[in-house]
Amino acid sequence: MAYATGTLDNTLHERIPMEKEILKLLRHAEGAYVSGQAMSHTFGVSRSAVWKSVASLRKMGFRIGSCANRGYRFEAAPERIVGLDIEADLDTRIIGQSVVSFDSVPSTIDVAGSLASEGCAEGTVIVAESQTGGRGRLGRKWSSPSGCGVWASIVLRPAMPPRDVPKLTLLTAVAVAKVLSEQYTFDARIKWPNDVTVNGRKICGALTELVAEQDAVRHVIASFGLNVNQTPSMFPAEVAAIATSMRIEKGEQFDRPEVFRRVLREFDTQYVHFKQHGSGNVLKQWRDLSCTLGRHVRVQMREGYVEGIARDLDDDGSLIVEEKDGSLRPVSHGDVTIVR
Amino acid sequence: MAYATGTLDNTLHERIPMEKEILKLLRHAEGAYVSGQAMSHTFGVSRSAVWKSVASLRKMGFRIGSCANRGYRFEAAPERIVGLDIEADLDTRIIGQSVVSFDSVPSTIDVAGSLASEGCAEGTVIVAESQTGGRGRLGRKWSSPSGCGVWASIVLRPAMPPRDVPKLTLLTAVAVAKVLSEQYTFDARIKWPNDVTVNGRKICGALTELVAEQDAVRHVIASFGLNVNQTPSMFPAEVAAIATSMRIEKGEQFDRPEVFRRVLREFDTQYVHFKQHGSGNVLKQWRDLSCTLGRHVRVQMREGYVEGIARDLDDDGSLIVEEKDGSLRPVSHGDVTIVR
Repeated sequence: MAYATGTLDNTLHERIPMEKEILKLLRHAEGAYVSGQAMSHTFGVSRSAVWKSVASLRKMGFRIGSCANRGYRFEAAPERIVGLDIEADLDTRIIGQSVVSFDSVPSTIDVAGSLASEGCAEGTVIVAESQTGGRGRLGRKWSSPSGCGVWASIVLRPAMPPRDVPKLTLLTAVAVAKVLSEQYTFDARIKWPNDVTVNGRKICGALTELVAEQDAVRHVIASFGLNVNQTPSMFPAEVAAIATSMRIEKGEQFDRPEVFRRVLREFDTQYVHFKQHGSGNVLKQWRDLSCTLGRHVRVQMREGYVEGIARDLDDDGSLIVEEKDGSLRPVSHGDVTIVR
Repeated sequence: MAYATGTLDNTLHERIPMEKEILKLLRHAEGAYVSGQAMSHTFGVSRSAVWKSVASLRKMGFRIGSCANRGYRFEAAPERIVGLDIEADLDTRIIGQSVVSFDSVPSTIDVAGSLASEGCAEGTVIVAESQTGGRGRLGRKWSSPSGCGVWASIVLRPAMPPRDVPKLTLLTAVAVAKVLSEQYTFDARIKWPNDVTVNGRKICGALTELVAEQDAVRHVIASFGLNVNQTPSMFPAEVAAIATSMRIEKGEQFDRPEVFRRVLREFDTQYVHFKQHGSGNVLKQWRDLSCTLGRHVRVQMREGYVEGIARDLDDDGSLIVEEKDGSLRPVSHGDVTIVR
């Protein structure tokens, strides 16, 4: 598969088939030199083909050292997120066999939707350094400045009715929250249905879109926007008080490609389990990570609001709210405010 | 709005803005002559513009008589379904303000999906004389030979979560079954979830497709294929034993444009009520028209089957099946066979 790095405006970089394999090999050598001759032998290509691939990788921003008689060695990956760099160090089963990266797109969701309609493989990932028209739920804007976050969409093709798709929103939030909690020691919590928060501020939003027949999903685009290296002044005024980033919370910058890889690996683990064993595990983890359950909430819906204690998550992803009169009301959509 | 009649292959007929108004006026005169001068006056256009519109209507297949000193009169509409002819005699609130007709398309669903993505108005209708790749549920083929049926798709933009979309499948089946029962005296029955049957044979299939966020539908394409004038030999061998048409059941041919108009009017009535008052009315009518409720059924699903007595329709459109052990099981998708 020939995929692309670069901006969307016809400056797409066309991959040389060998690049990914050579990158894997050099990464695997952990800084040791690998001879051009050995690579040419391993892959059954000419030394000139090896040289071309290395040149191409350097052009993408990889630092690859070379030394006469010793060969090439991996020194550093680009700071920005490059599809090939993610793919080459992922080791997943479904997610990210192809990672298509862009400098800038209107929205990764739309690119993923187009690729999905054209029949791309399940697990194809779209990621962009910046989005010019990043979207949140219900058509709201999502700030996605260049080089600060992970703005990504994943194409899924689950065999399920449309009613089950909210479970994949929960799965996405669980994957991000788990990585933040377990691999980066944040106290990450999930706010129903799709926000990951740290210290009460939103650090990540998740969003799923679907194309379906009435009883069978054709594809789902699971998207998330994770704030990594923003400083406070980088947020638009209207969200500055409620948003945060990994950097703001810890006072240090993070390696975005590595954060992204970890989220994709966790997503893959969760999704493979989900496909094989159903949603029980996702729902359980969601409940454990929730900052909504047990709280007095007000859920604003299209047709009014529901207020009460958030008691549980229903099997279909609905929030079960116990109203004042003691009745239990499942809420399938809306915006939650914690009342007290 | 400039819409199209003709085949899809770039021979689209471009409408003259005045055609629809002139057609309405002539139809309204019920065979009486209307002078060109009067029309030119009414619409504030030149007599040459009136003449051009009449010529264009004739080219589309309308029979319009003319007589020196008396003017023009409506004699007959084309036998085939022409968008303009449907629009001009509809009087609906949401459905069919624009009816886009084609001689042949791969699938009206796909054309409607494209127009919906491009932002067409709610209620836009796509209809084709024949489909080369007509689809049924779950990607199955749907036979749609030229000039025999009504193959149509309607673009809807309801404010609802994806889980409620099956109700629109029920609404579509109800609209068709009601027209067949009440206006054409068929004993039309609905087989869960989306078939209309007469004497146990399928006369119409309904299908909804959707594009949505996890909690908000962006658009729904409600489609139906109604067998009108097929003879038995026109059905593919694999469905000949289970399919029927209006003509087969009554031994006479039917006016397809008129059948189509009646279905669109009924759909409009049902949909306007649905938007204002919810799905209660649709569910009630569905139950009244059902040939599934009360029967011993077997529902084949992706993940196995459920067998028992079909007891009721759930509020979300699921079929509630009472299993042998007395437990009630809601089934959201699958194929129903009546066991006995």
